[in-house]
Amino acid sequence: MNQIKRVVIVGGTHGNELTGIHLIKKFERTPKLIERSSFESQTLLANPKAHGIGKRYVDTDLNRCFRRQDLSNYSLSSYEAQRAKVIYQTFGTGGRLEANFVVDLHSTTANMGLTIILGSKNSFNLRLAAYLSYVNPSVKVLYSPLRNEDSPYLDSICKLGCTIEVGAVAQGVLNARLFQQTEELVREVLDYLEAYNKGMPLEIGDSLIVYQYIQAIDYPRNESGEIRAMIHPQLQFQDYEALHPGDKMFLTFDGEEITYCSNSTGYPVFINEAAYYEKGIAMSITQPLKIEGANQELEFRI
Amino acid sequence: MNQIKRVVIVGGTHGNELTGIHLIKKFERTPKLIERSSFESQTLLANPKAHGIGKRYVDTDLNRCFRRQDLSNYSLSSYEAQRAKVIYQTFGTGGRLEANFVVDLHSTTANMGLTIILGSKNSFNLRLAAYLSYVNPSVKVLYSPLRNEDSPYLDSICKLGCTIEVGAVAQGVLNARLFQQTEELVREVLDYLEAYNKGMPLEIGDSLIVYQYIQAIDYPRNESGEIRAMIHPQLQFQDYEALHPGDKMFLTFDGEEITYCSNSTGYPVFINEAAYYEKGIAMSITQPLKIEGANQELEFRI
Repeated sequence: MNQIKRVVIVGGTHGNELTGIHLIKKFERTPKLIERSSFESQTLLANPKAHGIGKRYVDTDLNRCFRRQDLSNYSLSSYEAQRAKVIYQTFGTGGRLEANFVVDLHSTTANMGLTIILGSKNSFNLRLAAYLSYVNPSVKVLYSPLRNEDSPYLDSICKLGCTIEVGAVAQGVLNARLFQQTEELVREVLDYLEAYNKGMPLEIGDSLIVYQYIQAIDYPRNESGEIRAMIHPQLQFQDYEALHPGDKMFLTFDGEEITYCSNSTGYPVFINEAAYYEKGIAMSITQPLKIEGANQELEFRI
Repeated sequence: MNQIKRVVIVGGTHGNELTGIHLIKKFERTPKLIERSSFESQTLLANPKAHGIGKRYVDTDLNRCFRRQDLSNYSLSSYEAQRAKVIYQTFGTGGRLEANFVVDLHSTTANMGLTIILGSKNSFNLRLAAYLSYVNPSVKVLYSPLRNEDSPYLDSICKLGCTIEVGAVAQGVLNARLFQQTEELVREVLDYLEAYNKGMPLEIGDSLIVYQYIQAIDYPRNESGEIRAMIHPQLQFQDYEALHPGDKMFLTFDGEEITYCSNSTGYPVFINEAAYYEKGIAMSITQPLKIEGANQELEFRI
């Protein structure tokens, strides 16, 4: 593996997720916080116009604009489609400030604590995730299997990197504890990269749990497409907890309980994320995979 | 006191507060839930255009558009200024569906539980509040002293009525438990009005705590007006709890703690409400007033 030469730290990909936005502003005021001797650190406020109007996006979700075919499609002219092209042309392959590693800072109304979402499941990313969950056992690791070039997410601009997703926090709100914890995670990522570059990799645990995306579940809806149920109170804020077949999942507006219909236990995440109502996602079901031997050669064992 | 002849139940005054919006839709699907024998019940989705775009408002905050001088000012032409005129001309004094009582359903990202905000501190409203906190001791009662005709709030369209404010819940999110509790509060309000009309007033407690608005406190800001601190973790979600002089209040982005500077203990509410960042309000300080003899003649004793 080559050295990491340039890292880009991104906030405000969604304009109403204030944690990342104010962390980027802090790093820009105090660059020494993200400076390391062996690589260059860049910051990026990804969607300033959406931040200006206090919304997730102006025209369309910027964090769904990074598919390679879309980046090369000049007929896509929304604000975010254009912004994605500029970001990729700056920090992506061949860009003026081509980065080797990206970390994209997000927040969620779901109770996901400190979550690392891996853009790609290569062994570098997995070892980094193993390190972060080793130094902070409350860190959860999530992976959605999409080949990198098909990924619509901003973190696909580099082969290496991750998204940090923290919650529960409302859109448009700062939670000081989560702000501090996110800053600490960024510091740990940068320290890990620095040690790697110097040929002195930091110690990681010998196993790692990765929650792998299985399927999204939508809210029950009526014939007009309007939701007709809410997340069941017993499931609210229970991200990463086991959801067994038959467990309560939704509560209709009329008080009817709807249970989880499946052959196997799932582990839901993004439960009741505000931005996902319009995407037709009430939660995403994952399965935990234990990866053994992380310290030698990372291999999956299902 | 005359009979209550018409009640208007309002939701979606803010387009991203889903509790009230989905309760109004439920009441419109199942009108018998709000029907009572002695008065007529109307529902109102106050800002449908804001709900359509998933925002608090389109042009300006509808819940600041109801000052009498603004309602008669034809040069105010924002969507919400016009909407306020239509609402007042329909349900206000002399309107086609003039209402005697209004209940306006809101939610907040602050941890305010179930709060009744009194639009006006007349003895009818106070006795209703005393009833609601008697049947559900977790109900808190809040009052901001503004003469009715100067009030910018929607609930000023009637002399009698209140705003129901529930939280903590993120904007754009439904919390099933708070949805059910809000529905229950509306039912209790209607039952109280029905019993009053029938000359068989429901039993209320003999005292009532009203949290009276003292002052708003803004976030510490830099010379450009940008916030430079967050709600301190020890204060987050501590609405209605005593905040003593010297208690931790804010945490700057650089980790400096800022304490509460005052001569007396305050009781903050609306702590970290998302919609108030732009209004320059980090929280509102209140003082609890105990009102004795609620069952006879309500009188204030400070």
